[in-house]
Amino acid sequence: MKMIDLNCDMGEAFGNYAMPNDDQLMDYISSANIACGFHAGDPGVMQQTVALAIKKGVAIGAHPGLPDLQGFGRREMKITANEAYQLTLYQIGALSGFVKAAGSKLHHVKAHGALYNMAAKDVTLAKAIVQAVYDFDPGLILYALAGSKMITEATEKGIVTASEVFADRSYQDDGTLTPRSAGNALIDNEEAAINQVLNFALKQEVSSVNGNPIAVVAETVCLHGDGEHAVAFAKLISERLKEEGIFIKAPGK
Amino acid sequence: MKMIDLNCDMGEAFGNYAMPNDDQLMDYISSANIACGFHAGDPGVMQQTVALAIKKGVAIGAHPGLPDLQGFGRREMKITANEAYQLTLYQIGALSGFVKAAGSKLHHVKAHGALYNMAAKDVTLAKAIVQAVYDFDPGLILYALAGSKMITEATEKGIVTASEVFADRSYQDDGTLTPRSAGNALIDNEEAAINQVLNFALKQEVSSVNGNPIAVVAETVCLHGDGEHAVAFAKLISERLKEEGIFIKAPGK
Amino acid sequence: MKMIDLNCDMGEAFGNYAMPNDDQLMDYISSANIACGFHAGDPGVMQQTVALAIKKGVAIGAHPGLPDLQGFGRREMKITANEAYQLTLYQIGALSGFVKAAGSKLHHVKAHGALYNMAAKDVTLAKAIVQAVYDFDPGLILYALAGSKMITEATEKGIVTASEVFADRSYQDDGTLTPRSAGNALIDNEEAAINQVLNFALKQEVSSVNGNPIAVVAETVCLHGDGEHAVAFAKLISERLKEEGIFIKAPGK
Amino acid sequence: MKMIDLNCDMGEAFGNYAMPNDDQLMDYISSANIACGFHAGDPGVMQQTVALAIKKGVAIGAHPGLPDLQGFGRREMKITANEAYQLTLYQIGALSGFVKAAGSKLHHVKAHGALYNMAAKDVTLAKAIVQAVYDFDPGLILYALAGSKMITEATEKGIVTASEVFADRSYQDDGTLTPRSAGNALIDNEEAAINQVLNFALKQEVSSVNGNPIAVVAETVCLHGDGEHAVAFAKLISERLKEEGIFIKAPGK
Repeated sequence: MKMIDLNCDMGEAFGNYAMPNDDQLMDYISSANIACGFHAGDPGVMQQTVALAIKKGVAIGAHPGLPDLQGFGRREMKITANEAYQLTLYQIGALSGFVKAAGSKLHHVKAHGALYNMAAKDVTLAKAIVQAVYDFDPGLILYALAGSKMITEATEKGIVTASEVFADRSYQDDGTLTPRSAGNALIDNEEAAINQVLNFALKQEVSSVNGNPIAVVAETVCLHGDGEHAVAFAKLISERLKEEGIFIKAPGK
Repeated sequence: MKMIDLNCDMGEAFGNYAMPNDDQLMDYISSANIACGFHAGDPGVMQQTVALAIKKGVAIGAHPGLPDLQGFGRREMKITANEAYQLTLYQIGALSGFVKAAGSKLHHVKAHGALYNMAAKDVTLAKAIVQAVYDFDPGLILYALAGSKMITEATEKGIVTASEVFADRSYQDDGTLTPRSAGNALIDNEEAAINQVLNFALKQEVSSVNGNPIAVVAETVCLHGDGEHAVAFAKLISERLKEEGIFIKAPGK
Repeated sequence: MKMIDLNCDMGEAFGNYAMPNDDQLMDYISSANIACGFHAGDPGVMQQTVALAIKKGVAIGAHPGLPDLQGFGRREMKITANEAYQLTLYQIGALSGFVKAAGSKLHHVKAHGALYNMAAKDVTLAKAIVQAVYDFDPGLILYALAGSKMITEATEKGIVTASEVFADRSYQDDGTLTPRSAGNALIDNEEAAINQVLNFALKQEVSSVNGNPIAVVAETVCLHGDGEHAVAFAKLISERLKEEGIFIKAPGK
Repeated sequence: MKMIDLNCDMGEAFGNYAMPNDDQLMDYISSANIACGFHAGDPGVMQQTVALAIKKGVAIGAHPGLPDLQGFGRREMKITANEAYQLTLYQIGALSGFVKAAGSKLHHVKAHGALYNMAAKDVTLAKAIVQAVYDFDPGLILYALAGSKMITEATEKGIVTASEVFADRSYQDDGTLTPRSAGNALIDNEEAAINQVLNFALKQEVSSVNGNPIAVVAETVCLHGDGEHAVAFAKLISERLKEEGIFIKAPGK
């Protein structure tokens, strides 16, 4: 039985600022990474987003980010490993309060933005974040970039991981993402993006920018929630996966 | 056997700003109300303060406040009941992350500053905060002003409470605190403050500003942590209580 | 020659959160109240909004609010008069940095949200805000609720004022706004709103909820920028005013 | 006539968190770099610190930092040149509001912490900060690390600069600071630090870690305000400079 997880960053509204796609996106995804108030989200948004995920049967993950609301957690900050541990633990705890109060259970953790990217390459940060997840609950699943230090460190620690791949990013021959600075980093052709996802799900493979078939561990596909076509694309990809007989479900569910 | 709890607000440092008394105060108190990052405290401070409380055998409480770091959570804000629920739950969750990671257990919750004062009188806010505590863990103990709406609401909900009294505040004939606007609101004579605490512990009684003996429910005494003499006073009161054969311990411990 | 000012709160985006109407609204208004980073806005948004106002020939005002981004400055906070003075001065200064750098000149100040409402009634806060405006530049114009303490205090201080009225709020026989708690507080019929504005501009009069013609000082009309129909309504009102031969211009311009 | 400037970071308190040395330090320094609310400081602290500087006749500078209160502006953040421009301009403007209201004049700008260090090396950031200073007021003096990109860029732009040197940091043969990672980066011997300052003032020279006399442009000496001995050291250095006939005064005063 073929299956794959579709995850999406959710609950990235803040105060007066809405993120109107969340409700509809929840119909098509299997995992929600819910912002925890540092790069986006606030206690009210968190409560609503947790309720929404429960209602729609979507697995709930904490989505900790750097303390940089203005930069949406996308600006790298030179934090220490201790700080990475502390801010991850704080945010997991905060979200878990809402999950617990709603009678549900936290399923996974996925770092956000610059924290995600820094920890993908920096083993010290990766260790710190993995330790925070482990110390909070070793049964949580860590979502992280396929092939990253985060996956290695979590695996070594005994934490179950979900290797993340992207529908709309191209891959190089070595299986890494094409850097955003390159002209062909993004896949903006919808059909190509869908084919890439089907390829991930059916063959654990991606066609590189050079047209070579490259093996990738593809356990969860990241969908973007904030574009205009985000909902339409999520719907389409969800339909195409079902047509191919691929189950959309969160790991471990 | 006579006993009373001595509680103190802890972990109210932030970033570069230290609160140097915490370490020593932990030797004399039985309950620590640890700031959760909204009015004071940050993830690093929280981790360290939780570790300190565990090391010193002090019961750990979450100390949620209004989102007002500049005002130290002391400025009233017109928040809705939903917002009170959400910010309380968020902060309890955040602190509990550190407590859980350190292998300990959250013991109580005490609201901070303006949130404490508003909820003492406003039944809607009191209900919201009590509900947040209950939804997170109905086994938590709520520390709140003796005779307040918080105590009534928590009791009705089935949550164990600890009625809080003050060493350095005078009381009126009806058992309420003398408003701070009055000249005699504060007790600055150290011996008088100590006698008041002994009175609380031995007789569940306070001598009012008019010299009348008034019955009070006195389960936990709030010590202030931020004055120059805070440590010396905590030491003294702790010694005097012991001399009188009164055990200093957190409720339920 | 009949004339009136149309003002609108602008630059209320923040970081990743856009406010997409600003560009179009600037075509129809004569005064922009630009958020200064406390309730909304950030240094980048401020710079862009100042540039936009200059390009469109719209008078630039500082729009200071309470330090409450999550609450969008709409939640009352018990601040002291000193704090009101300080946060007003800080925000005027911050915005004026961008105005000065762009080679333009700050034209007015209008307090935002809860700060606006509190200072309309509280003479101490009104005095403090007026003093901050005066100390920064006594030539600035203060926009404030028609009939409010802010208008009285500014006038007494010798600051030029612009009395603000609303297109979409109903008025009572005493010339005050119908409280939002009342069922008929809002005027949602577009034609009625337009007629009210024409009435303001042509006769300095409003038709009260009881149908009585009431005299009001109406120097600037507040248009809302954040609804779906905000741009369409601004366009319409602008056209109707011009058809009636009423000039849309900022006071003192 | 020999002269040198003694500058110190001031107004780095925040809300409830005091920085108790400011008042005394102002007696010995000639330039105060006042925090502007991003890495430290708040509108109340800024007002008080400006008043204090005026009272003590100390030149007032804006001290803009990264938006990172928890990290005290000491953690590097990957900001764009535009962001550096915007946050510098915002903070200069904000401080200038208080200076203007107090009837004084802003004298200089010195970037703080990580912003200072990043811009010392990164020409793009240096250009952006210099442009912000220039656009606000080309008559402001830029204080920056001696030999840094900031000095070069400001000079090219036609802004007067003050090259900053340190009493308690050692220098290498090429005139740069010994990196903090090295064991001998800090000079903790008080007499050695004083001699270094006298050397700066009398000979525009420093004795390198290898004992070689190295020429440095030394126009302003940074004193640290936050240690226990900060006041005593400032007093001592001030006395020793006077004994040597060296005037302590801000550039351009």
